[in-house]
Amino acid sequence: MKNRQVVLKSHPNGIPQPTDFELTDAETPTPGPGQMVVRNLYFSLEAAIRGWLDGKANYFEPIPLGGAIRGPSVARVVESNLDGYEAGEIIFGLHHWEDYSLSDANTILLSKLQPREGIPLSYYSGGLGGSGQTAYVGLHEIGKIQSGDTVLISAAAGATGSMACQIARLRGCTVIGIVGSEDKARLITEELGAHGAINYKTEDDLVAAIQKACPNGVDVYYDNVGGRTLDAALACMNTFGRVIGCGMISDYNNQDNPTPIYNMWKLVEKELTMRGFLLYTYMDQVPAAMDQLHDWVAAGDIRILENVTEGIANAGYAYSEMMKGATIGKNLVKVDTDED
Amino acid sequence: MKNRQVVLKSHPNGIPQPTDFELTDAETPTPGPGQMVVRNLYFSLEAAIRGWLDGKANYFEPIPLGGAIRGPSVARVVESNLDGYEAGEIIFGLHHWEDYSLSDANTILLSKLQPREGIPLSYYSGGLGGSGQTAYVGLHEIGKIQSGDTVLISAAAGATGSMACQIARLRGCTVIGIVGSEDKARLITEELGAHGAINYKTEDDLVAAIQKACPNGVDVYYDNVGGRTLDAALACMNTFGRVIGCGMISDYNNQDNPTPIYNMWKLVEKELTMRGFLLYTYMDQVPAAMDQLHDWVAAGDIRILENVTEGIANAGYAYSEMMKGATIGKNLVKVDTDED
Repeated sequence: MKNRQVVLKSHPNGIPQPTDFELTDAETPTPGPGQMVVRNLYFSLEAAIRGWLDGKANYFEPIPLGGAIRGPSVARVVESNLDGYEAGEIIFGLHHWEDYSLSDANTILLSKLQPREGIPLSYYSGGLGGSGQTAYVGLHEIGKIQSGDTVLISAAAGATGSMACQIARLRGCTVIGIVGSEDKARLITEELGAHGAINYKTEDDLVAAIQKACPNGVDVYYDNVGGRTLDAALACMNTFGRVIGCGMISDYNNQDNPTPIYNMWKLVEKELTMRGFLLYTYMDQVPAAMDQLHDWVAAGDIRILENVTEGIANAGYAYSEMMKGATIGKNLVKVDTDED
Repeated sequence: MKNRQVVLKSHPNGIPQPTDFELTDAETPTPGPGQMVVRNLYFSLEAAIRGWLDGKANYFEPIPLGGAIRGPSVARVVESNLDGYEAGEIIFGLHHWEDYSLSDANTILLSKLQPREGIPLSYYSGGLGGSGQTAYVGLHEIGKIQSGDTVLISAAAGATGSMACQIARLRGCTVIGIVGSEDKARLITEELGAHGAINYKTEDDLVAAIQKACPNGVDVYYDNVGGRTLDAALACMNTFGRVIGCGMISDYNNQDNPTPIYNMWKLVEKELTMRGFLLYTYMDQVPAAMDQLHDWVAAGDIRILENVTEGIANAGYAYSEMMKGATIGKNLVKVDTDED
């Protein structure tokens, strides 16, 4: 079994470029006691990975130069010495961008997938994977959404945002999405059921645009981007409003110069609750989320948006496209394989 | 009965000056149905009042030029047509800076005080009033303090901060206070039981100073000031840390140019909860808070710090001194009276 690996060639300067990544040959791992070797099928491209490319610690260790890129994947168990896992089973976990990964009981996000018939495997690294679970847990556990709430969602055509739009709409909320193009604005209103869209790239006064789109104010802001959009959203929150801190992608490409926030006074004035979260803290809520998401997808109530790039060799390119905001929905790399 | 009133003469430019206020004669009110006339005894000076002086709405209507300053007071009922209130009783409520105020069932913060023997009436507009109640509710309900937590408190020698220091210490927390002078630093460590103090005026690198004072990181930050101090505290929070948004006095004198916050990414990275609150939302928790605070004061476990200015004519001066940070503890104006 040949093992190819995508490694970090250089620390990105701003938006990652394809040349910051390199495909190399690597040892194919063999499983020790309590370990298993898995065949990666889909890499789930995540904005969070950007934070690991600068050589500085955040909530994970940084990826060293020459080290394999860390990222979640859907994979098939090839050989297992880990209790409860058998060859042939489909799993999800935080692995590396390579053909074959070692996995064990300490693998972050490790879970056994039970793909339902008729549902593409790729969905389990997107709308039915971390992105959908994050949207679900964020809206319910952190945002405490209630039917009738006005829910504002940034990066609303992205992997998490597109799921959040649909979940909030299904829960009876009024959904306004913030996006970066007219195409995305059309997509979320015409195909995801959002009640309104704001193109932040063409709005000089984002506060005025939000106020116009949300005449009753904002009860819940699902923040995927931080920065200027967060600052504008704060100015529009209703009393007792909730800000779901899911990501701050606007600063990921430039973490040494974060965008300043000026409207923090609203925290006190409007008695807001702002809460950041990372999905792996809430894994106990994932089974219930998956049941509901499966049902919605099966019933056709939720549309999963995917952007699949073929071939491990193109992973760096695909990541660069995503981080410049050029894509819609969940970004995946289908690792070269005939297994599925 | 003569009625004197302190009115807003000019919108302050930055820190309020005594000349922004004016003492005038006013009508003495007579109570209509459901109303009572109260004799104000102590005005409780509050940073929040600053937000009402600029002629712009925040969570309350602005005070117009020529209008009486709005503020909480301890008062004695003179004449009452309000069920449940009788002449001679002592009450607390959001009134105006004047000898006599009208009060009714809609008066914000209205409560009947039951002064315990041996406890000065003035305490009920400070450590046993809004300041102590705010500190108590903030630490417990918003900050979810636990024994063993490291609790960082800004404006720690102020009315609310000095109470928060003592309450957190009594709950078994490690307490570090941020203050603006060496005298205040000594006060909170030697007399209020804080385990450490930081003088923000002499620290160029506030993050480093907090890290040094809090070697185990910050679990709970009680924020009375916002701005640069909040930004530095965010950088030092532990995972699942809580930020209690009680006030942002650093920007009250200059609300059009708030201090930028750069460390919002910590919200997600550390899964923080930041929650703003105003005491009047949590009035149901005040009776229990008062029981506990009374017991602590009676036992000598809590020291109430007061700075009492005599005479309604000096209310503007007293307010100016407080807002420039020149005072320690709770700032009160004792209205001229022989009644107590």
